[in-house]
Parts: sequence; structure tokens; C-alpha cells
Amino acid sequence: MSRAIITLTTDFGLTDMYVGTMKGVILGIAPDVQIVDLTHGIAPQNLIEATVKLAAATAYFPKGTIHVGVVDPGVGSTRSALIVETVSGFFVAPDNGLLTLPLRKQSPVRAIRLTEKALPFCLPEQSSTFHGRDVFAPIAAYLAQGRAVEEFGEWCALDSLSECAIPSVEQVVGDLNTETLRVPILYQDHFGNLITALTRDLWIGWVARFGLSSEEAIQRLTIQAGALRWQGLARTYSDVPMGYPLAYWGSAQTLEIGIREGDAASSCALKPDESIFLTLRPPTSRSGS
Amino acid sequence: MSRAIITLTTDFGLTDMYVGTMKGVILGIAPDVQIVDLTHGIAPQNLIEATVKLAAATAYFPKGTIHVGVVDPGVGSTRSALIVETVSGFFVAPDNGLLTLPLRKQSPVRAIRLTEKALPFCLPEQSSTFHGRDVFAPIAAYLAQGRAVEEFGEWCALDSLSECAIPSVEQVVGDLNTETLRVPILYQDHFGNLITALTRDLWIGWVARFGLSSEEAIQRLTIQAGALRWQGLARTYSDVPMGYPLAYWGSAQTLEIGIREGDAASSCALKPDESIFLTLRPPTSRSGS
Amino acid sequence: MSRAIITLTTDFGLTDMYVGTMKGVILGIAPDVQIVDLTHGIAPQNLIEATVKLAAATAYFPKGTIHVGVVDPGVGSTRSALIVETVSGFFVAPDNGLLTLPLRKQSPVRAIRLTEKALPFCLPEQSSTFHGRDVFAPIAAYLAQGRAVEEFGEWCALDSLSECAIPSVEQVVGDLNTETLRVPILYQDHFGNLITALTRDLWIGWVARFGLSSEEAIQRLTIQAGALRWQGLARTYSDVPMGYPLAYWGSAQTLEIGIREGDAASSCALKPDESIFLTLRPPTSRSGS
Repeated sequence: MSRAIITLTTDFGLTDMYVGTMKGVILGIAPDVQIVDLTHGIAPQNLIEATVKLAAATAYFPKGTIHVGVVDPGVGSTRSALIVETVSGFFVAPDNGLLTLPLRKQSPVRAIRLTEKALPFCLPEQSSTFHGRDVFAPIAAYLAQGRAVEEFGEWCALDSLSECAIPSVEQVVGDLNTETLRVPILYQDHFGNLITALTRDLWIGWVARFGLSSEEAIQRLTIQAGALRWQGLARTYSDVPMGYPLAYWGSAQTLEIGIREGDAASSCALKPDESIFLTLRPPTSRSGS
Repeated sequence: MSRAIITLTTDFGLTDMYVGTMKGVILGIAPDVQIVDLTHGIAPQNLIEATVKLAAATAYFPKGTIHVGVVDPGVGSTRSALIVETVSGFFVAPDNGLLTLPLRKQSPVRAIRLTEKALPFCLPEQSSTFHGRDVFAPIAAYLAQGRAVEEFGEWCALDSLSECAIPSVEQVVGDLNTETLRVPILYQDHFGNLITALTRDLWIGWVARFGLSSEEAIQRLTIQAGALRWQGLARTYSDVPMGYPLAYWGSAQTLEIGIREGDAASSCALKPDESIFLTLRPPTSRSGS
Repeated sequence: MSRAIITLTTDFGLTDMYVGTMKGVILGIAPDVQIVDLTHGIAPQNLIEATVKLAAATAYFPKGTIHVGVVDPGVGSTRSALIVETVSGFFVAPDNGLLTLPLRKQSPVRAIRLTEKALPFCLPEQSSTFHGRDVFAPIAAYLAQGRAVEEFGEWCALDSLSECAIPSVEQVVGDLNTETLRVPILYQDHFGNLITALTRDLWIGWVARFGLSSEEAIQRLTIQAGALRWQGLARTYSDVPMGYPLAYWGSAQTLEIGIREGDAASSCALKPDESIFLTLRPPTSRSGS
């Protein structure tokens, strides 16, 4: 049998010993587990960034993987903590919306809220500021050792889980004349690429309203990202000249804005929570007089 | 038998190949070892930060773990190198004070200084600037493979090991009227939390001098951290409103200063080596006239 | 048999989920593989930095290790991708010069270019911007599982592989009177040390032209690094007073410029692609009259 996998996603950064300490706790309980860092570079307390990244990465792990997420501004308060079982694995996290997107993408099966039943599995002295070490790490390790989910708490309804408010795509002008889409930026990656909330499905639905296929719509599309404005979509960076902007379907199947061998976030002077705008020239031109 | 664990703590950062190279050397000797990064984000040559972090993390690892620490401003000089065996595992490090705090917390049993006996275990060509790769990594790997400590050098007295000077808590005013404690900041974590040198034991001893229990003293406590000043201690971040400062017992059982969902180091304009001040209003008020 | 090792070297950084996602893909195919990060901190698209670091680190890994390099400005374009077998292991990377230096140091045996034969081993839906996840990770994992190199593509000549232009050492003054060497800086490490292109072999060849041994030449050597200028070489940092500059043979056997417990890049105001200058006072003094 291959080794159980535990992934870790936090806003702890890597300059402290927090992540390493969690690994020590895990290995003390489950010595043969394979631990994988997804990222510890979530901006402090940024649940949106965390849930988007969790959804993008966890889909690529083998069945049965245990994903631990600790972005936890309410640590030590009365916020509850969850274990959610999906068709592909397990999530262990505070109940604060961190799991919003991975659970939308990976069918959740059932969930428990941790109760006092979990205490024997936690570290004996529980701090009020580091549940990653004292609660989430040991519980994930015991799960990896084969403990049943229900040993840690009580079943709860899937629709009782907290969600965080993911910024959504909006039509800027009223219904029939709608031509412009305001597309919020979810986060900016290491390269300065801007990852937006526009999925392919949303795009196809939007252009269908004008009787257009995706290919036809691309011919009629203008993108405005900060001060930069250009036509159409590209497939990959090298489709445009060095230093030019492009919009493309990124590796998580959402629209991204990049600059070939450049930094789009800084060139466009845009950041997460701000928006780009997509404008479609409708098939029947309304120019003339 | 479960796999041996080697942890790595350095000031090498992660943008270079130094850490990865050490892992290559280790795996060439001990292919089944589990390697865990504690942190490679120690500020260059900062032994205080390193020893505090090592002490906080290593306590959470299973018995027998081998901890390698390489913060080594004297690399290539005549400084000696150590293997220290404690009741819970092994430390491999230069003899420069890096182990000061972990050895105070984890009873050391015996120590050796590396001698020429260690040479056959080191890489054949030893650089004068990268003993992490050429000395510490291979020796840790051979230890993990079951080699005895004494094969690498000569026993030395535990009290002969170098110590680094940990900043200590000081009473600011003279003996009987002492009401203020100057508490040095040991380091600032990724969130901007300020981790101080005040342990719970020191705190309890201090307030006992006024005939106060910890709970009574908290009612009488004022904290001054840079330009910010407030009353009392909190249990966790969510005990105070968003953006407010708090002092709390951190996950390593020392006093920490934080800002709820903020950055205390920047808000207080304080940094390691500077101090915060705790003032206690004594039980018998001396106001009046 | 010990577990196969896959190393990863990218410019992806650690704040995103890109690296973690690659690991998920690898572990889904090769559950027992040992994954080691060399570095993910290569400056975006910087092939020179990447090839220098790959060459320095990969030499220290056990025979058979599979090294994956993804610094890939041409991702999704027609650039081809390679598997190169050397006497010590395998490299999987885009054919863009990333492997220039490791292949110069580790005798390559044979190479294939990926063709459509590789498609069954790639992820079913291939993005045009993240071949690290969709192509390189799964192919490395199948290699680790024992698949033969030729299952992924067609043999190609070793001299058909792309190379990147490594800045080279140049003599500044004409042939017979040559006394000054312009030595380009290849990269700056985490400490601010400047790693140059001057190898020991080049140095020995240069000074031999003056009939000097290395030891004799050091007595006659002046180094100019930005505004700083000093005599001779040192062995290690502690050979000079705190804060002083030094030149020394670094851990990759090339000349490096450092400042004892300081940051040479910032003190010298130099950066990669700029140069330092070595001047040799010839044995026969030309002063006099």
C-alpha cells in the first residue's frame, strides 16, 4: 500500500518554524506519511486567495489525500473546525470559508464538526493561537493512520458550512444592451499574472447571448486592464511580442492577464479585488446614424 | 521501523540551490531518511533568531530526530563543530551558540566535537564556505544510518559548548519600587507578531513579588509597545477588535505582541533587539497625598 | 531498492500552488518517489541563473536521480522538450538552454525530443501555459516508475540541443600586455555574494601566461568590484575583518565576491551581468626610471 499523503496550505510563510513544527507533530503520529506543501505564501488571513489556490491544486492529488488548510483569523475563538470528506479525499480546516471553492469543485460527501471527541487526538496543551500545530496537524495525522472521520466530532449538514464571498463577474450595462463584463481579479501570481474570476463556462454563456460562438466572440472582444487595452485572446505567452499584454485561459481554466516575460500586475497597476473589463462588439453593428 | 528524520535549519534562504544540494548529499548516503525543513529563513548570521526558532520547533519532533543547524558565520575558521545527544534526539551544528536554547530546554546527555575522525564521513573535497553540504549534511546522514556519535570526534564537556547571549528581561526601576519590566523582542514573525523573551515563569515570579496572582496582575497591567499603549493581556487575536493591539502568551509560551489581522512590528515601529515595557500598578495604591 | 528521486527546479516561486500541484501529479503516478526541491526561486525566465544553479546542485545527487527543470518562457509554443540521460541521471526540461551547464559538467549519454509518443503519459487536458504540471511532472514520474526514455519521443543528436549564452571571462587589454581580466557576475545569492564566471582552471591558465603559480599570482592580484578595490584572495569569510570585502573560491569552484557578514551585491552596487576586474602586476616590474 502506498503512503498516505497530507498536504499543507497556510498563510504562515516560510521564515518561521511554524510549518516545520506542524510536520514534526504529524511525523510523530504518522511516521510514514508523505507531507506535501501546497503553499505557505497565502497573504495573511486572505481566505479568497487561499480557497482559489486550494481548489486549483487539490484537484491534482491522488484519491484519499488529506488536505490541511490553516488560514485562520478566528483561531482560539468559537469558530468551529471541520473534516470534510469528498469523493477524492479529505479536507481538515477551520469553518471559515476556506473550503468554499474546493468543495464546489470536488463533490463533498459528508462533514463533521470537531467536538470534545477530538481532544484526545490533539496535543495535550492547546495554545489559543496555533491550532495548526495543536489541532489540525495531529488530527490529519490520525486520519492518515486510518482513524474514522466520526471519531473526531459530530456529523453536520453540508449546507451548514461557512462560505466566503468570492467576487463575481458582473454585467456593467443593463440587460439587453449589455456589452461589457466587469471581471474581478482573484489574485496575482508570482509572475504578476492576474488570475480572474471568469470561467470558460461563464464566457460561453455570455457570448451565446449575442448568438456568438467563442471563436466568433474573440474577434469582437476588447480587453481593458488598467491603462492597457487590446483586442482578442491569446493561447500562450509567445503568441504576442515580448513585453505585450495578453489574455488567455490559464491553467485553472479561468481567464488570466499576463505580459510576455513581464509583470502584468505592475504594468497594468492592478491588484486583487480590482477588475478588468471585457467589451464585446455585437454582431449587428449599431454604428451609423 | 520507521524512517529516520533529519531536520534542516539554516540562513541559506530558498532562492539558491544550497538547501537542495544538502538534500542530495543526505539522500546519497541515507536514501530512506525523511528530510524536514524547519526554516531556511533565519536572517543571515542571526544566531539569536536561529536558537529561539530551533528551540520552539525541535521540541515537537519524535524521539531520535537528528536536527541540523547551519547558521555559521565562522565557516572555514577554527570554530569547532558539534554533535550533541539529548534525551529526545541529536543536534549537529557549529559550536557558536546556535544550540543555546534547544539545549536549555531538551536535556543534553553528551556531546562530541568533530575531529579528524570525521573526515572519512565528510565529502572528499571540503570547501571553506559550505560546510552545510560538505560536513553537516553527510555527518547527519551517517548518524541517521546508525553510526555512533563517537565515530565522528572526541567527547567534550557539556559546559564547554559555546552559548550566545540571549537578551534578557530586566527590571527598569530599583528593587523595592520596581514596577516596570523591560522585555526585549527576540524576533518578529511572518505576520509581524513580536515574540519577546518574557516566559510565563518569569511573569509569575515578577507578579508574586507584589503578592499578586497572574489573574490579579493582568488587571493592573499596562503594556507599552512603541507608540502603542494598552491594558491587560488577551487570550487570542479575536479577543480584541480588528486592528487593535494585544499581548498574549504565544505558542512557545512566551509573551507576544500582535495586532488583530495586522502587523504589530510595523504598527509599533519596533524590531528585534528593541523592547516593550510592562508596568504593574501595585496592590496598594500610592496615589493620594 | 531505494526510492527514486525527482528534483524540481523552477521559476515558479513558492507563493502559488504551482509547485505543489506538480507534486500531486507526480505522486499520483509514482507514489513512492522522493521529491526534492532544488529551488523555485530562479528569477522569472532567467535561464542563465537556472543553468548555473542546476549544474551546481545536481552534481551532488545519487546516480539515477531525475532532475526536472521548468524555466520555460516558450511554454505552449513550438519549442521542443527533452529527456537527456547522463552518466549520473536524467534531465527533463524544455529545449531552451536550461541544461547548458549541467550537461557540460555531467557527461550526457543520449537524448530524446518528446513527440506525440509522449501524449499518453501527459495529463489528458494539456494547458498551454503550465507544462510543468501537464507534461514535465507526469513524464518524470513515469521515468521514475521505470519507463524507458525512448517511450516518450525520438532520439536526437546531443549537439542539436539548444544552449544559452553563458557570459564569459574576457581579457580587457591586448594580447601580450594583458593584465586585466573582466569577469562577469553570473548571479547573486541570498547573502548578496556575487558568483562569477571565473573557474579555477581559467585562473590557473591565465596566471601561467605570466609564468606564475596560483600562489605567486595571488600576491600580485588586485580586485576591483564596483567602487571597492582590494588585494589578493581569501580562503573564507573570517579571514577578513567584519564588513570587509573578499574574493574566494566558492563552493562551486568559481570565484565569488563577498563581504564578511555583509551583502556584497549591495555594498559593491553590482548585479548579475555586470563584471568585476582582476588585475595582475606582472613578475617583471615595469616601473622605474
